Amino acid sequence: MFKKILVANRGEIAVRIVRACSEMGIKSVAIYTDADRQALHVKKADEAYHIGTDPVAGYLNAHNIVNLAVAAGCDALHPGYGFLSENPELAEICERRGVKFIGPNADVIRQMGDKIQARNAMTKAGIPCTPGSNGNLKDLEEAVALANKIGYPVMLKATNGGGGRGIRRCDSEKELLGNYDRVISEASKAFGKPEVFIEKCVVSPRHIEVQVLADSQGNAIHLFERDCSIQRRNQKLIEIAPSPQLSQAQREYIGGLAVKAAKAVGYENAGTVEFLLDSDNTFYFMEMNTRLQVEHTVTETITGIDIVQEQIRVAYGLPLQYKQKDVSFRGYAMEFRINAEDPKNGFLPSFGKITRYYAPGGPGVRMDAAIFSGYEIPPYYDSMCAKLTVWALTWEGVIERGRRALDDMIIYGVKTTIPYYQEILKHQEFRDAEFNTSFVEMHPELANYANEIPPELIAAAISAVIAAHEGI
Amino acid sequence: MFKKILVANRGEIAVRIVRACSEMGIKSVAIYTDADRQALHVKKADEAYHIGTDPVAGYLNAHNIVNLAVAAGCDALHPGYGFLSENPELAEICERRGVKFIGPNADVIRQMGDKIQARNAMTKAGIPCTPGSNGNLKDLEEAVALANKIGYPVMLKATNGGGGRGIRRCDSEKELLGNYDRVISEASKAFGKPEVFIEKCVVSPRHIEVQVLADSQGNAIHLFERDCSIQRRNQKLIEIAPSPQLSQAQREYIGGLAVKAAKAVGYENAGTVEFLLDSDNTFYFMEMNTRLQVEHTVTETITGIDIVQEQIRVAYGLPLQYKQKDVSFRGYAMEFRINAEDPKNGFLPSFGKITRYYAPGGPGVRMDAAIFSGYEIPPYYDSMCAKLTVWALTWEGVIERGRRALDDMIIYGVKTTIPYYQEILKHQEFRDAEFNTSFVEMHPELANYANEIPPELIAAAISAVIAAHEGI
Repeated sequence: MFKKILVANRGEIAVRIVRACSEMGIKSVAIYTDADRQALHVKKADEAYHIGTDPVAGYLNAHNIVNLAVAAGCDALHPGYGFLSENPELAEICERRGVKFIGPNADVIRQMGDKIQARNAMTKAGIPCTPGSNGNLKDLEEAVALANKIGYPVMLKATNGGGGRGIRRCDSEKELLGNYDRVISEASKAFGKPEVFIEKCVVSPRHIEVQVLADSQGNAIHLFERDCSIQRRNQKLIEIAPSPQLSQAQREYIGGLAVKAAKAVGYENAGTVEFLLDSDNTFYFMEMNTRLQVEHTVTETITGIDIVQEQIRVAYGLPLQYKQKDVSFRGYAMEFRINAEDPKNGFLPSFGKITRYYAPGGPGVRMDAAIFSGYEIPPYYDSMCAKLTVWALTWEGVIERGRRALDDMIIYGVKTTIPYYQEILKHQEFRDAEFNTSFVEMHPELANYANEIPPELIAAAISAVIAAHEGI
Repeated sequence: MFKKILVANRGEIAVRIVRACSEMGIKSVAIYTDADRQALHVKKADEAYHIGTDPVAGYLNAHNIVNLAVAAGCDALHPGYGFLSENPELAEICERRGVKFIGPNADVIRQMGDKIQARNAMTKAGIPCTPGSNGNLKDLEEAVALANKIGYPVMLKATNGGGGRGIRRCDSEKELLGNYDRVISEASKAFGKPEVFIEKCVVSPRHIEVQVLADSQGNAIHLFERDCSIQRRNQKLIEIAPSPQLSQAQREYIGGLAVKAAKAVGYENAGTVEFLLDSDNTFYFMEMNTRLQVEHTVTETITGIDIVQEQIRVAYGLPLQYKQKDVSFRGYAMEFRINAEDPKNGFLPSFGKITRYYAPGGPGVRMDAAIFSGYEIPPYYDSMCAKLTVWALTWEGVIERGRRALDDMIIYGVKTTIPYYQEILKHQEFRDAEFNTSFVEMHPELANYANEIPPELIAAAISAVIAAHEGI
């Protein structure tokens, strides 16, 4: 087995990977920039190396990171999610330098990263895709012609985009005309290439994705699906496994599709095939994420399979430990992304010092956090600072457990999405498992909760009143 | 369903019950004495009432507690474990005052609390018991005659004892003569009655116990077994479910015995049938605990069934939600009792202020703790301050997860059993699942670990050295 793994990431996912290494008896190496000197992943890893003063640049410098991996004696590198995790060049540099990249090979990353190539590969493999471009749009004229052919609304997308960015919905030719240059510009800025394409817009779909695992011997299995329909502006907030909205027949159908997709592209390691589920119960391939995902925890919780350990094992060349018939799931798991944001203020990031942190406990509660009492959340990164995953045997049970565990958790010093999630859990449509990706947008009243006042402030206010009365 | 439940306990088990109430939409009422003003169960419950200045007496005053339950409008009372949980009078007072006692009825508590009555009831029901008395010993003469008949070693036990107290092993007539008056005296002091009995001593047995659940309609099921062989002086330290030492046939056999035992005595609610497993693979009934147990978490973890919620449901009169065929288990769970004790100093209690606490997280980790950063552990109670329960699909996996999670956990300010458990997890006999109740006693070297120095102390020492050199 690998002796030492460099964890090319930060935050909770770096801690998650360090924990997997520890359980496998593998040494872990963390990297950090100035802003992350006090970060938990630095404390938890066996070794930690400084990679620069700029908060972000160090995490994006593939050459430096692989150099460090070699110098520190690492025989493998785990990219986590975000940062360089879907950058094929990192995989290539690793290969050249003899450091095993824990993920698929650069060609597959590149193919799935190019949404046109991915669509074409999937169509060829018999995976249903929405009607749309089979190449980059040459110009606005072609866009208009294609949109008229497939019918509005359409989605205009950056070919190299992903993670919900570089996407615009166009409900009419007028909107398409207005958005075209804007998306080209976004694509150019955010993803380095001005290429865009068009596809039919599935209105208010459910977001259903399937976790796959594949080894270097050509075996591929799925670990069932996740329902990630609770999103805000294409950013997932709550993820659920299995989907409470699918029949067993639908579950088997998309599980099979996902394995077929993985095999069609010669996939290796963990990946996710994302589908849109239309209101008429048609599934469409959306994209394949060639990395570990934030929400892998819900799949781990219902199947009992440690996805990160399995990633490491198959990267080492071992065959998958499980055959499809060995994989079963039990109950429901639900993950809440605890973001340092103020939902009452347009989800504005709320960085700063965590004056008090208490992790929820008891049955069916898993915490993956990068925070602790006294930790100062730096303003340079994603606002997600912790993930709460709850589990119960039934759908009703997991809702009540989520409510209890969110109530149990204490994070003072920054605003978080916790009270917002409590409102979602109370909503009848959510409780009835009747929701799609428009749920959050359709219910702005979810942010109308009363602000909770931390007891310290109440105590301080009472002390102040007493002091005033006593004339001190 | 019940509207409001009084939790007649403190510490982690009170928090556990409050959490179950919260998930079921039931209000919870905590009680506390002066020493527990800052306790977590007081903070977590919906209401909390002061029950006296003496640290312990308030928790043992059944009349006062039931009066309070009535005054606070509670329709039920959960006794937890320890304190009054196996006191039949509490159950009787509850019944008289119209507060539902969440546990079996007073007659069954009384019958199982009297070890002679329990032995006789089990023998009648066809449950194997060790050879021994079928009544209290009249005098020393009878003790000697009986011991000679069944053969040494024998166990001399307080008839009303339990929880590993009021027990002496006698390897010869000389030892029996020496211990007789001592156990009579212990029985009198600890359990209020000078009654003792004798049974054959099973040498170095494994401790295997079966969780049962029974409703008021006469249904009874088991939730498989726990292996609690890792004990020190009859006090459990680590509990495992399922036992890695049993075959599937043995598992089914004792599961069936436990259900038979529960049905034979008309049992209702959650209970545990404890067995000794002799080296020749014979099971003997030891005792039945008529309450929730500390180690219920491992059973919850492998079966997914919330035992506390199920206790509340059946106490309300609902039938069990599960039939035996619906109950399955997955993987292995292991609970570590985190005691504030110094294993290097004869497990001397180590009370005081917790200067820093960090709860472990990640996959397969459950925490049930009564502590938090800044909490001062009072010296008046049991030294167990937290329970760590880990889970994995395999026996090897759960050992590595336990090691990682213990390593992940931070408790500064008091000594704990954490480093001692790390030594157990490294021990080959433990890893090979080759252990019995003599394991801890046979391996005094387990306490020979190097003391970890908290980083604060290291930093302080370095600062002191620098300051000295700088002549400040």
